[in-house]
Amino acid sequence: MEELAFIELDHGTGAKLSQDLIDMITSTLEDVHLGKMEDSAILPMNASQIAMTTDSFVVAPPFFGNGDIGKIAVAGTVNDLAVMGAKPLYLTLAMIIEEGFPIRDLKRIVSSVREAAREAKVKIVAGDTKVVAKGEADKIFLNTAGVGIFEREPLSTSKVSAGDKMILSSNIGDHSIHLLSIREGLGYESRVLSDCAPLNNHIDKLLSSKLGESVMSIRDVTRGGLAEVMHEFSQKTGRVIACNEDALPIRLETEMAADMLGVNPIHLANEGCLCMFVKPDMADEVVAFLREFEHFKNACVIGEVTKTTGTGVLMSKKDGMTYELEQLIGAELPRLC
Amino acid sequence: MEELAFIELDHGTGAKLSQDLIDMITSTLEDVHLGKMEDSAILPMNASQIAMTTDSFVVAPPFFGNGDIGKIAVAGTVNDLAVMGAKPLYLTLAMIIEEGFPIRDLKRIVSSVREAAREAKVKIVAGDTKVVAKGEADKIFLNTAGVGIFEREPLSTSKVSAGDKMILSSNIGDHSIHLLSIREGLGYESRVLSDCAPLNNHIDKLLSSKLGESVMSIRDVTRGGLAEVMHEFSQKTGRVIACNEDALPIRLETEMAADMLGVNPIHLANEGCLCMFVKPDMADEVVAFLREFEHFKNACVIGEVTKTTGTGVLMSKKDGMTYELEQLIGAELPRLC
Repeated sequence: MEELAFIELDHGTGAKLSQDLIDMITSTLEDVHLGKMEDSAILPMNASQIAMTTDSFVVAPPFFGNGDIGKIAVAGTVNDLAVMGAKPLYLTLAMIIEEGFPIRDLKRIVSSVREAAREAKVKIVAGDTKVVAKGEADKIFLNTAGVGIFEREPLSTSKVSAGDKMILSSNIGDHSIHLLSIREGLGYESRVLSDCAPLNNHIDKLLSSKLGESVMSIRDVTRGGLAEVMHEFSQKTGRVIACNEDALPIRLETEMAADMLGVNPIHLANEGCLCMFVKPDMADEVVAFLREFEHFKNACVIGEVTKTTGTGVLMSKKDGMTYELEQLIGAELPRLC
Repeated sequence: MEELAFIELDHGTGAKLSQDLIDMITSTLEDVHLGKMEDSAILPMNASQIAMTTDSFVVAPPFFGNGDIGKIAVAGTVNDLAVMGAKPLYLTLAMIIEEGFPIRDLKRIVSSVREAAREAKVKIVAGDTKVVAKGEADKIFLNTAGVGIFEREPLSTSKVSAGDKMILSSNIGDHSIHLLSIREGLGYESRVLSDCAPLNNHIDKLLSSKLGESVMSIRDVTRGGLAEVMHEFSQKTGRVIACNEDALPIRLETEMAADMLGVNPIHLANEGCLCMFVKPDMADEVVAFLREFEHFKNACVIGEVTKTTGTGVLMSKKDGMTYELEQLIGAELPRLC
């Protein structure tokens, strides 16, 4: 049979072409593919507790400077499991593909899934592909769901209390600025790269170290940005969160691009940035530990959970100015993850 | 805040409106919702083996005569777990929603998810919502991923051998004809309803009975229809499958509508139809057992795995005519599931 160059509606019918497509996907996934082609995968499990999560990815554009939707789809779900203290094991991969999407691009995305899954040491155990007509999807949407096991006590928001320090692992805003720059032709895309990365190995090293027990809760700082994480923790702890605005690690180019777009990096989505709540006496040691990783070389303490009851986020600057950070209703930004 | 009637892009930004939307969804799910709102759900698990699967749902139209995309999204994943012999426990629910989608319709879909999850006795443990701009999705796409546990030996294609009888649980083609009839205005939609239903309780009763050990493998007959299931089993067993065409349970109206559309119900998708491979000496008893369920009242033996090695599906009719059923490359049908 002649090799097709573009996805056709018939790739989604469940007949021979669907089977060919699935064969291409599973052979491209190679060693990260697990599970026979039956209606479900059957998988070994040795746990009394699992972590489970899901995320859909509508990244536009699907390919960007230093990554693509495939890498993000693995990293996003792996990170959501890892920040709970779980060890990610199994991922499902579902795709909704627009008719006419180049099969070469699809292969490239699946290769990125493979590469990220290898890095994160997870297996892709089940999948699904649907094809919709031209104009019924924006090129390609992915969904991953993941299961992890606990080899330690789960982390939890409920462990966070007044006095805990808030640590940011890395720069904020880069991912969003990178994608916006490509889309809007701002010219920053080669200088500001996406931070997209699976972080479970980093998290595991930290939590397995002697510092592990001082880490109360971790969040993957994605949609809604750091601002939403702080609002969430304020609401869940019932305490005001204080954030030192001058401490926030923000790349100069990111700041400039954000200014130009009239947005604040604190609201921008990231794909490889963690916010940690840590016992105060160990915060500096955790920062030092994180900085040993190249990806976290800009880690720093950015604030704390105050003793003040109530909800809100208080931003302060060196010049003594403080102001309350309002929770945004929406955001005047296009979708980026 | 004023209540919004339609989904806006801001519902997908991760800020306050996203939070409101998630609150609406979790409160509509009510008692079938499990898991705290953290990056992953933490869930009890008591198993040494799990089943895991995923499916995206791009059903058009999202609402139909006797169901909607929400019901299908639960039933599809529950059935994929149950046919492997697993007990479905946990589902994730991810939605990609087109800007402008009525929030009332979204609530209706989430209510259907709840109802189907209650019927199937599964919990919705994690979720995700993304919003894309007008024209970037066809109204709404759902994805569910599911995890189940094994309280018995898993079923498997590899257990199927020559001589095993093939049993169909119910009519084929009804789901597709129902949806096509709505879309094309054929006038059959009130007479031919979708067969969409979670079937895990039915399957569990069968497998828990004394007949259970004679059931080797079960398939959910969805995309690609019965034809694809037979081709799959022929390829996996390395034996020719023989199917008695006259035995196929097909509703008269479905046959008429399919004729009109120039399609064969054997290729049409179903959402609540099982194909079972059963030891020959117990096949009649399994059929009798299935017929006790209203949903399976038309169950019957439709063929067998022959002793002939090779791949292929041989259709035979009462008049002695036999022919080989070719595997379709695609299908000249719009997407239906």
